[in-house]
Amino acid sequence: MADQQARTSSGDKRPSDIPAIRWEEPPEGPVLALLDQTRLPAEEVELVCTDAAALVEAIRSLAVRGAPLLGIAGAYGVALAAARGFDVIEAARALEEARPTAVNLSVGVRRAEAAYQAALARTGDPTAGAMAALAAARALHQEDAEASVRMAAHGLALLDELLPGGGHRILTHCNTGALVSGGEGTAFAVALAAHRAGRLRRLWVDETRPLLQGARLTAYEAARNGMAYSLLTDNAAGSLFAAGEVDAVLIGADRIAADGSVANKVGSYPLAVLARYHHVPFIVVAPVTTVDLDTPDGASIEVEQRPGFEVTEVMAPQVPVAGPGGGLPVAPLGTQAYNPAFDVTPPELVTAIVTEGGAASPVTAESLAELCAKSRQVTTP
Amino acid sequence: MADQQARTSSGDKRPSDIPAIRWEEPPEGPVLALLDQTRLPAEEVELVCTDAAALVEAIRSLAVRGAPLLGIAGAYGVALAAARGFDVIEAARALEEARPTAVNLSVGVRRAEAAYQAALARTGDPTAGAMAALAAARALHQEDAEASVRMAAHGLALLDELLPGGGHRILTHCNTGALVSGGEGTAFAVALAAHRAGRLRRLWVDETRPLLQGARLTAYEAARNGMAYSLLTDNAAGSLFAAGEVDAVLIGADRIAADGSVANKVGSYPLAVLARYHHVPFIVVAPVTTVDLDTPDGASIEVEQRPGFEVTEVMAPQVPVAGPGGGLPVAPLGTQAYNPAFDVTPPELVTAIVTEGGAASPVTAESLAELCAKSRQVTTP
Repeated sequence: MADQQARTSSGDKRPSDIPAIRWEEPPEGPVLALLDQTRLPAEEVELVCTDAAALVEAIRSLAVRGAPLLGIAGAYGVALAAARGFDVIEAARALEEARPTAVNLSVGVRRAEAAYQAALARTGDPTAGAMAALAAARALHQEDAEASVRMAAHGLALLDELLPGGGHRILTHCNTGALVSGGEGTAFAVALAAHRAGRLRRLWVDETRPLLQGARLTAYEAARNGMAYSLLTDNAAGSLFAAGEVDAVLIGADRIAADGSVANKVGSYPLAVLARYHHVPFIVVAPVTTVDLDTPDGASIEVEQRPGFEVTEVMAPQVPVAGPGGGLPVAPLGTQAYNPAFDVTPPELVTAIVTEGGAASPVTAESLAELCAKSRQVTTP
Repeated sequence: MADQQARTSSGDKRPSDIPAIRWEEPPEGPVLALLDQTRLPAEEVELVCTDAAALVEAIRSLAVRGAPLLGIAGAYGVALAAARGFDVIEAARALEEARPTAVNLSVGVRRAEAAYQAALARTGDPTAGAMAALAAARALHQEDAEASVRMAAHGLALLDELLPGGGHRILTHCNTGALVSGGEGTAFAVALAAHRAGRLRRLWVDETRPLLQGARLTAYEAARNGMAYSLLTDNAAGSLFAAGEVDAVLIGADRIAADGSVANKVGSYPLAVLARYHHVPFIVVAPVTTVDLDTPDGASIEVEQRPGFEVTEVMAPQVPVAGPGGGLPVAPLGTQAYNPAFDVTPPELVTAIVTEGGAASPVTAESLAELCAKSRQVTTP
């Protein structure tokens, strides 16, 4: 049933004209168009989803990814199922389960689903339910863009406070910019704000194995924004710390537990340990929807294990020589891989958590709960 | 002038029949045949060098690599130049400079060169010089195989002492087995000894970006030896430490300074910091030729910076789509990369240094000097 179509960007469009996600209503019925992030930076191709199953596939394959954007995509997915007359509850569950660690996905799905159910209960009309779900998705999209602006401002203020004098050299991991958000992103948005204020000396971009979101996506966004950046293998970060070349680490988050433990792309935790060893601030930037007060601590966060072929093969759409996983083999056939998608950083290694409501620092269950309350006042309409 | 020829393994030979390096004397003149490590595990191809310039190229491209093997290759390179009637001093300097960090290369080159010069001075006969250089290279080759046996025994004894009860779960980085040595290697040889003694529960293999020596070479050697191993991205090691899944880290070294600072493949230092944070032993295994008492400390070690395209492109001989560096582009064109080949781990993060003479622990200038003296008694003929 999954129906995805690829649409390449036409020649006259600038790359930046393609948003990460957009809702369209052509005569043949509504669709959700996604910039296929697995094909960047080589190609800018849109994936057009006409049902929730196609979106589930796009989420699993990481064509669409990044915690805030997953929330928006999930909400639009419910709206799409409703508008197309599919079973909304079934679609919502499938979407929620597409990736287990990112809490925003579930939050977005449930918000659109609740709006649908409320409208249906009120009017008895599925069309009204579909319109309510779409309105909820659009509101979430808009709120996320606004949250991005606020996070960037709070994050930059914190940087300036921690590192007086400017000339910040920021290390970041994975991709947390416009490709993960309704706006300019989370951690990347802070670095971009520093760049625009003339206070970014260098953005150190971890390539972020196995799927190279840093090399493919963050480098792409940094280049397009004219930032001074350098790419490095994840394991070269230690040399930068040792040489005193990192003033702060800025990362996003996929789920933050009530105690302040942060689940984020695998490789975040070793950076937190290095940052602590070298007395460098380690700052997490994420919208308040990332905080899951129902998850008490880091040990309670389910970490998604991904297929081993992401490690044993290099995935690239332009590679014609294919291994069993569809990529270029780099390890002997039959090699078993350990491939967690995320890791968990305990609160004692996190200098600050920045949301749209401000910053919690030091990070404790109390400071986080207080920040959440403040952030929700800012964002909830 | 560089003359390398590729020779694919014939069908009837088992892969293990191809040694990492061998000297041959066909009627048309002596050659140095190298197993081309850049093409493993996809293809087993020998590179045949007929002069030192070809060997310099093979060293730079990492077709031959690994500290002890570089020493052996360098010595044979001098012997090759002498046997073929080239300028021996010129060849020796070019070989020494092919890679600046690995001290063994320089040690091997100088040993063969000294043997050549001494024989020439004694006899006035360049042929006698060439024979002396070859004898020196062969002696180094043989000594390295013996050193490997001794390092494995000392390393396993240390493991058993630090981790009573066996069932060792060892994390290793880069490649340190038979492909880097005249014998079974350094750190890998210790893990292999543990495996043969039934005391290796798992070998965790870091893929080792950018050139994937772990994925390509260590996984290949582990599979061929029937060891229980799993491959992981370098940045997933943090999750293993956090889960208590690592009992010890075993790595090799490219140069050890007099104070015990260890230069090794980039990514070693972050493992040392993680190991310290998690109270896990971090053990360096290297022949005594790796210790350079003329380099006082870590800051004095020159760290080789390698081309950025190793990071911005994935290098694989079977990839037909080529970027400017000859690989598959994974980052936007023009991306600047930070790509040190090595990093330096300070002695306070190293639990022990194991050589053919035993172990230095704790690692201090005094314990290291003492170990060197003992090791040289064991190895020097």
